[in-house]
Amino acid sequence: MIIGLITDFGENDYFVGTLKGVIKRINPQADIVDICHGVPSYFIQGGSYVLEKTYRFFPVGTIFLVVVDPGVGTRRKLLLATAAGYSFVAPDNGILTPIFQLGRDVVVRQIDQERFFLISGSSTFEARDRMAPVVAHLSRGTAPSEFGGETNEFVVQPDHCPKELQPNRVEGRIIHVDKFGNIISNVPGKWLFARLLAGGFQHFTLWINDQEIGEYRQDYASVSPRPFLLIGSHGNLEIAMNRRHAFRELKASLNQKFIIVFS
Amino acid sequence: MIIGLITDFGENDYFVGTLKGVIKRINPQADIVDICHGVPSYFIQGGSYVLEKTYRFFPVGTIFLVVVDPGVGTRRKLLLATAAGYSFVAPDNGILTPIFQLGRDVVVRQIDQERFFLISGSSTFEARDRMAPVVAHLSRGTAPSEFGGETNEFVVQPDHCPKELQPNRVEGRIIHVDKFGNIISNVPGKWLFARLLAGGFQHFTLWINDQEIGEYRQDYASVSPRPFLLIGSHGNLEIAMNRRHAFRELKASLNQKFIIVFS
Amino acid sequence: MIIGLITDFGENDYFVGTLKGVIKRINPQADIVDICHGVPSYFIQGGSYVLEKTYRFFPVGTIFLVVVDPGVGTRRKLLLATAAGYSFVAPDNGILTPIFQLGRDVVVRQIDQERFFLISGSSTFEARDRMAPVVAHLSRGTAPSEFGGETNEFVVQPDHCPKELQPNRVEGRIIHVDKFGNIISNVPGKWLFARLLAGGFQHFTLWINDQEIGEYRQDYASVSPRPFLLIGSHGNLEIAMNRRHAFRELKASLNQKFIIVFS
Repeated sequence: MIIGLITDFGENDYFVGTLKGVIKRINPQADIVDICHGVPSYFIQGGSYVLEKTYRFFPVGTIFLVVVDPGVGTRRKLLLATAAGYSFVAPDNGILTPIFQLGRDVVVRQIDQERFFLISGSSTFEARDRMAPVVAHLSRGTAPSEFGGETNEFVVQPDHCPKELQPNRVEGRIIHVDKFGNIISNVPGKWLFARLLAGGFQHFTLWINDQEIGEYRQDYASVSPRPFLLIGSHGNLEIAMNRRHAFRELKASLNQKFIIVFS
Repeated sequence: MIIGLITDFGENDYFVGTLKGVIKRINPQADIVDICHGVPSYFIQGGSYVLEKTYRFFPVGTIFLVVVDPGVGTRRKLLLATAAGYSFVAPDNGILTPIFQLGRDVVVRQIDQERFFLISGSSTFEARDRMAPVVAHLSRGTAPSEFGGETNEFVVQPDHCPKELQPNRVEGRIIHVDKFGNIISNVPGKWLFARLLAGGFQHFTLWINDQEIGEYRQDYASVSPRPFLLIGSHGNLEIAMNRRHAFRELKASLNQKFIIVFS
Repeated sequence: MIIGLITDFGENDYFVGTLKGVIKRINPQADIVDICHGVPSYFIQGGSYVLEKTYRFFPVGTIFLVVVDPGVGTRRKLLLATAAGYSFVAPDNGILTPIFQLGRDVVVRQIDQERFFLISGSSTFEARDRMAPVVAHLSRGTAPSEFGGETNEFVVQPDHCPKELQPNRVEGRIIHVDKFGNIISNVPGKWLFARLLAGGFQHFTLWINDQEIGEYRQDYASVSPRPFLLIGSHGNLEIAMNRRHAFRELKASLNQKFIIVFS
């Protein structure tokens, strides 16, 4: 059984290795896959982004451990969600918002069966002590219902989706900057074009830091030195520059708002 | 059989990939687990720290390859230690100090059976040419005694443990800074509190760079902007700040000494 | 079957995780090995370097997915090369040059059988949509000929090998800087010494940024603070400094030319 890991733990600490040890000890056959440990520290929306854009490519049955957890050690819940044949274990801070939005198929449970937990005396590494054991036992076939009862009370990220300010104005946010410096937004391309057409508009421009970006392209191989817009392979609107680091050049910041204007 | 890798090789070079190739060629069934490749370059204590805090979470039988090796190419020995059901392969520079301290169970061997080595003509990548083949053969069931005889002569890190300067003063060192900027020390929490109580003291403060840190907390969710102390999930004393990078804010440096005063 | 990944995708994005998902979905038994995702963005020679220096250590039969792809989305071809019992999938931009040079054994195919591709509607992530499915199907036993016909037209990197400017002058390039700051060149040690001897010369010095480097050593444990030359474990000429970051100290840059003078 495949267990995919998404965290903000980085790769230079003992965190990730310890998670793998805990899982392997419970299920030596687990096939652990590093998806991403480079989510910016504490940035919940960044974890949601990586999860949303990767999970559906994995085989049905894959279990995801998703940990960005600024509230570790406090009384926030731990969740086990199942949807579309996948399982997701995460703290209850909104990081599973894209999964909650998958529709009727979604079942969310509060993990409260302490018999699965490690007893370490620590309150600062619940990924190791509580969440990793749960995914390991899940991968051995323990039923989701064994870990806790269903719940309808869980945190949903309010900024996960872009906001319609006016019929011709949308407010988006920067949710990621990739290795190439491309700026990824929370605006789904399909949603954007549907709104554009529904409003009878033909063009759109993006305003960020008093700069207008109006050029729209299909790929990164632009000949222009100016920033341009495209729909990235993840499906969201993206700001890019030809072999340059758009995020730095535009002095953008993570979670920053921007405006899209239809005309 | 699981082979866990701890190195200071980083992830941007050909080093780690080559180790994996060498291991897989000898034992295609080996289950290679990346524990950490981000130990600061040449910082032996940093490698010891990651090893000490992760190995016990892995299943008994796991083999660890631990390489921080500023003396590569010189005549330092290569060691194979076995303890608590685990095996450890490393250069003889003190990096296995936490394992040596496990007690009577520990057996240390000098790896000198050259028939297991690759012949590459290089003297600068012994992890590839000597240590990786040894862990691969170990994972196939070759007995530890095949690789070399037992030895009682090996390097122990003098700074692995904190020092008692006076009954009410302890000198510790910074051995790690984690991704979140938390400063991890070489002072075990249990040891610290045992000394505190044994001396009839009730409080302790930490002095670093002329700054006194006296607040002690259970978790990271402090409301104060000031640095505070806690026992991290690894069990050692740690200096943290609420969602801020304590290492940078305090202008700390790796291997730096600090003083703890009991009162 | 082992699938080794070499990319410039970094480890902080959703790219690598998605590749793994696509591969696992087609072949859940695939043994995916991260070789290196830290090739400098768009730096094709850097990808060639990691490939050239790692592939031969893996078991025969290993499949390599090698992606540094500044031309993604344009009409450049995708290639499947087989040589020495290994398979290599990559964009046609010269990144497989070291494989092409292996001799008669090499067969290069143009991947054009679209039935293997994912249909995503994206043109900016062909590693996910086209190359990953091909390596996954290869790992399940699909014959190379199923993916496309043989071709003799493919890009070869002109700067892969050093250039002989005069009988006593060679022009090399910097193709990598490792984690320790060592500067790795495209000059193979064996080739260099063969030229030196063939010309009746006895010494060589290297000129970079108006600095002459003449000291040659066998390992990194030099006592001198000055930069020195050695043949690295990868077999190429390297500029190093004793526990210092030679690349920064010498103000070198990637792909920079330098001159070697024989005397």
